[in-house]
Amino acid sequence: MAERLRVGLIGAGRIGKGHARTLAAMPEVDLVAVADVNAESARAVAGEVGVGRWTTDPTETIADPAIDAVVIASSTDTHAALIVAAAKAGTHVFCEKPVALDLETTDVALAAVAAAGVGFQIGFQRRFDPAYAKAKALIADGALGAIETIRDAMRDPAPPPRAYAEASGGLYRDMTIHNFDCVRWLMGAEPEQLFAMGSALVDPSLAEIGEIDTSVVTMRFPGGALAVIDNGRRSGFGYDVRTEIFGSKGALLIGYREATPLLHLGADGVRTDHVHFFLERFACAYAEELRAFVAAVRAARPPDPGAADARAALTLAYAAEASRAEGRPVDPGRWTSAQVASS
Amino acid sequence: MAERLRVGLIGAGRIGKGHARTLAAMPEVDLVAVADVNAESARAVAGEVGVGRWTTDPTETIADPAIDAVVIASSTDTHAALIVAAAKAGTHVFCEKPVALDLETTDVALAAVAAAGVGFQIGFQRRFDPAYAKAKALIADGALGAIETIRDAMRDPAPPPRAYAEASGGLYRDMTIHNFDCVRWLMGAEPEQLFAMGSALVDPSLAEIGEIDTSVVTMRFPGGALAVIDNGRRSGFGYDVRTEIFGSKGALLIGYREATPLLHLGADGVRTDHVHFFLERFACAYAEELRAFVAAVRAARPPDPGAADARAALTLAYAAEASRAEGRPVDPGRWTSAQVASS
Amino acid sequence: MAERLRVGLIGAGRIGKGHARTLAAMPEVDLVAVADVNAESARAVAGEVGVGRWTTDPTETIADPAIDAVVIASSTDTHAALIVAAAKAGTHVFCEKPVALDLETTDVALAAVAAAGVGFQIGFQRRFDPAYAKAKALIADGALGAIETIRDAMRDPAPPPRAYAEASGGLYRDMTIHNFDCVRWLMGAEPEQLFAMGSALVDPSLAEIGEIDTSVVTMRFPGGALAVIDNGRRSGFGYDVRTEIFGSKGALLIGYREATPLLHLGADGVRTDHVHFFLERFACAYAEELRAFVAAVRAARPPDPGAADARAALTLAYAAEASRAEGRPVDPGRWTSAQVASS
Amino acid sequence: MAERLRVGLIGAGRIGKGHARTLAAMPEVDLVAVADVNAESARAVAGEVGVGRWTTDPTETIADPAIDAVVIASSTDTHAALIVAAAKAGTHVFCEKPVALDLETTDVALAAVAAAGVGFQIGFQRRFDPAYAKAKALIADGALGAIETIRDAMRDPAPPPRAYAEASGGLYRDMTIHNFDCVRWLMGAEPEQLFAMGSALVDPSLAEIGEIDTSVVTMRFPGGALAVIDNGRRSGFGYDVRTEIFGSKGALLIGYREATPLLHLGADGVRTDHVHFFLERFACAYAEELRAFVAAVRAARPPDPGAADARAALTLAYAAEASRAEGRPVDPGRWTSAQVASS
Repeated sequence: MAERLRVGLIGAGRIGKGHARTLAAMPEVDLVAVADVNAESARAVAGEVGVGRWTTDPTETIADPAIDAVVIASSTDTHAALIVAAAKAGTHVFCEKPVALDLETTDVALAAVAAAGVGFQIGFQRRFDPAYAKAKALIADGALGAIETIRDAMRDPAPPPRAYAEASGGLYRDMTIHNFDCVRWLMGAEPEQLFAMGSALVDPSLAEIGEIDTSVVTMRFPGGALAVIDNGRRSGFGYDVRTEIFGSKGALLIGYREATPLLHLGADGVRTDHVHFFLERFACAYAEELRAFVAAVRAARPPDPGAADARAALTLAYAAEASRAEGRPVDPGRWTSAQVASS
Repeated sequence: MAERLRVGLIGAGRIGKGHARTLAAMPEVDLVAVADVNAESARAVAGEVGVGRWTTDPTETIADPAIDAVVIASSTDTHAALIVAAAKAGTHVFCEKPVALDLETTDVALAAVAAAGVGFQIGFQRRFDPAYAKAKALIADGALGAIETIRDAMRDPAPPPRAYAEASGGLYRDMTIHNFDCVRWLMGAEPEQLFAMGSALVDPSLAEIGEIDTSVVTMRFPGGALAVIDNGRRSGFGYDVRTEIFGSKGALLIGYREATPLLHLGADGVRTDHVHFFLERFACAYAEELRAFVAAVRAARPPDPGAADARAALTLAYAAEASRAEGRPVDPGRWTSAQVASS
Repeated sequence: MAERLRVGLIGAGRIGKGHARTLAAMPEVDLVAVADVNAESARAVAGEVGVGRWTTDPTETIADPAIDAVVIASSTDTHAALIVAAAKAGTHVFCEKPVALDLETTDVALAAVAAAGVGFQIGFQRRFDPAYAKAKALIADGALGAIETIRDAMRDPAPPPRAYAEASGGLYRDMTIHNFDCVRWLMGAEPEQLFAMGSALVDPSLAEIGEIDTSVVTMRFPGGALAVIDNGRRSGFGYDVRTEIFGSKGALLIGYREATPLLHLGADGVRTDHVHFFLERFACAYAEELRAFVAAVRAARPPDPGAADARAALTLAYAAEASRAEGRPVDPGRWTSAQVASS
Repeated sequence: MAERLRVGLIGAGRIGKGHARTLAAMPEVDLVAVADVNAESARAVAGEVGVGRWTTDPTETIADPAIDAVVIASSTDTHAALIVAAAKAGTHVFCEKPVALDLETTDVALAAVAAAGVGFQIGFQRRFDPAYAKAKALIADGALGAIETIRDAMRDPAPPPRAYAEASGGLYRDMTIHNFDCVRWLMGAEPEQLFAMGSALVDPSLAEIGEIDTSVVTMRFPGGALAVIDNGRRSGFGYDVRTEIFGSKGALLIGYREATPLLHLGADGVRTDHVHFFLERFACAYAEELRAFVAAVRAARPPDPGAADARAALTLAYAAEASRAEGRPVDPGRWTSAQVASS
């Protein structure tokens, strides 16, 4: 490997643009190409960060032997094929979540990665947020004793367009998947029972396509620890991501973030603002996850979170869908063992 | 009725003592007698608040025609019989929760109250806490739009003695019953589905008697609104009671209370204290609920929360126990209709 | 002394009424009489707390040999004469601040107290607020190391009526006197230099009578520690009392108090209320100071804060007035030595 | 001017390195050269941000006709000469504060800028912090009514090395100068009276060189509004920068910033971290000020804060030193009129 890691970026949309800036600012990275199906996006992003090459053909980037790793931030339906292509080319892969909306495709892509032995990291950026990372470290240091309960909440400021909801794979695969990963990671274990309740309250017509926008999922972990995740597609006040971890010796509360440390005291009380969107909330995490990926690849360590995490979070989404459809708690191991069977 | 409401207090323990002080300080109340099976407690409390009469026989207090109302703060197993006796004597009743640990006894007591037409109030003090009362008022004013999700948490600082747990009726009838009432009240509706998950994590030996100390209960309300309650018998940091209400237009977060508005900034960060026990947290609410009871009786209005609330919260505890035992969601209406059948 | 301390209350206005309730609820106190020049006030307060005797003549209360102590909450201009009368009668005295608006009258009253050897406490209630008391204890425990700077702020929600301002003795004797006591007490020392700047901003016409409504006072203490006090007669947002203490090892920030631990998250940010008036903010402190007075008298200990504190805070008000008039820093010892001269 | 603004960076130390990253990431800037007297620093920073040219001779950079503007982040003693050289070359200047430690040198440099008509911006980065910028905008919108009092605090986590203190120009020119600018800017006016009190508490031996490390400065503005600034060279808890603005209709409190929105609840209370150093606290502001400079130069608008601001803040430092030396309040106009005289 060259002194700098030579990286190609695939996808120059909202997230990809941020990744381009992060990669361009890293001394240990040489961002050599930007690919996007939209020529204008590819050219604009390449121009902004001073990258000479841009293309509308991602396979060209993947096939380039001068590229060590690709960062995949294109649309979800392209992820699996790009991962497979990169694996075949011996190129390391950072991929935005999810690998695919279904387990079958996911398993094919992850099998290719495993067979090729390339590094693979999935974009669960929340793990790299300073507050979440610090919470994880405090737990590891025993600050909480044994974990007894986790409460994890996530709400979008406003619902996405109907077309997005229809193509997203549903609330559990699109949104709750972040919570599933977060809870697994903090708990350091996989749940053995899961129960999901959901409703279409923000847009009742979602019920026609069997979709929901408001949900509560409860999980039991080995040993009896419990977790509960609640989601909503609309908050009325901005992006809401908060996590509470209760242990035998105390608790950690990751709260909402003030955008500015400014209090306005007036006749109607004390007011402050707060961060409105996930890109602001996790700006730092999006940069940190790429630094971690680059560091792992350069050190020939497996990137983390990796393929197993990508799959495990998706199996919980499957379990939540089944629990809601069947109206009863389910064992997520059902989908885990499917994997065992297929491998 | 005399100009002042003449009240007898039954039970001079921890809660009863607080009620004695509140009643003694109310100009519109004449606290005329203090009864407790423990003579020393009765005498001490009567002496402290300057009440001339004390007794070890509560029935004497109830039978006294010069007494308009009784405040029952004796042990739970005595509540139902005292309520029945008071109803027969035409005496208004304020009773600490619960009426009884089982629905049968509860129904007998509440039927007596209904037959006698006396005022009855149950001690769900949380409704009278200024933060909860303000939240309820804001919801009524439409500040949140339609309610979509409620998250309600309650944790004790440390578990009660084993003997308490065994006699308490279990976590759901003893502790979660406060959350059940709170969620019903804020939602303004009864749940149509309930699912409970619980574990014995604080004291694993509780499992031997089928008891738990950590729990998550999820509920669906008509129209699809969801609620989730999580409880623990030990927090490691003090009393934890927090409630979050999410609506289409925003959210209300009732948080933990600082004991003092004092920040200590040092090398290890910024630190503050917080209220450690429910008696401190709800000191104001315990006084307010008695003021509301006295005001309702004097105005010949039905006190609120009343008999229906006492029963409804207990049916949810029954539902939670059944859901946990059966490992599946249940319809709490099962226990509500039992009431209809018996009346 | 009887088992209970027999107390007479003089003054049944806003503060006196609160004191009556506190005294009536104390098992170790027998509140035996309520005096007020307004017969209706005296009767109403006595009736509310169940005290048989009321009078319009405070001297009758003071002269009563069955009374051990008086709590003086009448208008400021009556304090000194009542203190002198109580001292002559051998009656212990709790007196609302200030003893008098001038040092001469103050010295006469405090000399009478000293000559009679009765207990004397001045109503600097802030010392008994749990946050201030805890800060003082942390300082005493060395949590801050050596104190380097104190910032102390106090603002009223809205200015008092013009008549009040004219009779109040001015901002420094009426309002800042609380800050002067607080800073002296926290610092554990007397300032050796003081500089005052003030303006009439809320009501510019106050300038006609040489009065101000906005002020900053800076002080230097022996060893070089600094303090700054800022005051305003109007905040626009409610009562503002906050104190910051900086030491070599960290800082303590006593902040504003939320009235309810309720956050309202909406499109315009996160909002909370806060305590609006000093009576709410210091409700607990007003009760605690009376408990401390009663405990000291019963234990035959000198009450604290006592005569020296009453005088010292007033000398700082004199110093602030002189500094502002002369446009230069002054040595507050000028007024302290006057005391030495007169004694 | 070329489409992109061609910028040379002078000074590749701590602040300069940050500026290099910001400039390199700006699409509208072409960072063409990095100069530092230390060849290794110049080369390393140029390499990190991908700039081809580096030099140890800043005059070479200034003289380059292909450079439109310089960003000066070298040591303070070099600022004035570099500004003069840039002005002569017709190059726009962004300069870290201060221009010089004395008014004479400052006036020479600013006169050169004025004569050449080049754009000049001084590095008072606090104005570009989102919280400060929002406060300023709220004031401009009338949210506070008329400003009555400003309280502005700044403390370093730990004192600088003795050598730094000796070369810094003293607390007022080195540290308080930021507060002087901030208060002037928020108030929208210049003070007409200033009084300074200071002590050497952190390092008492500073007194030997007439220096202080703890200070309180009070100021009166036309119309009577007051301001107070307190500083310390050691906080014991991290970087402290907080500002409070009180107006007739309410207040704005710019508080300390949590590093992570993470609460740790344990037996010893509730704990959070906070930002420890000014580079973290103002990371965003340091980037924003360069964006503002570039935008102003490209639009041919005068950059802001400019020469008048650089001088005005320094005159207040002079006034504070004189007030402390003379032990009395002074009129800062003394140093302002000196400017008039000299021009």
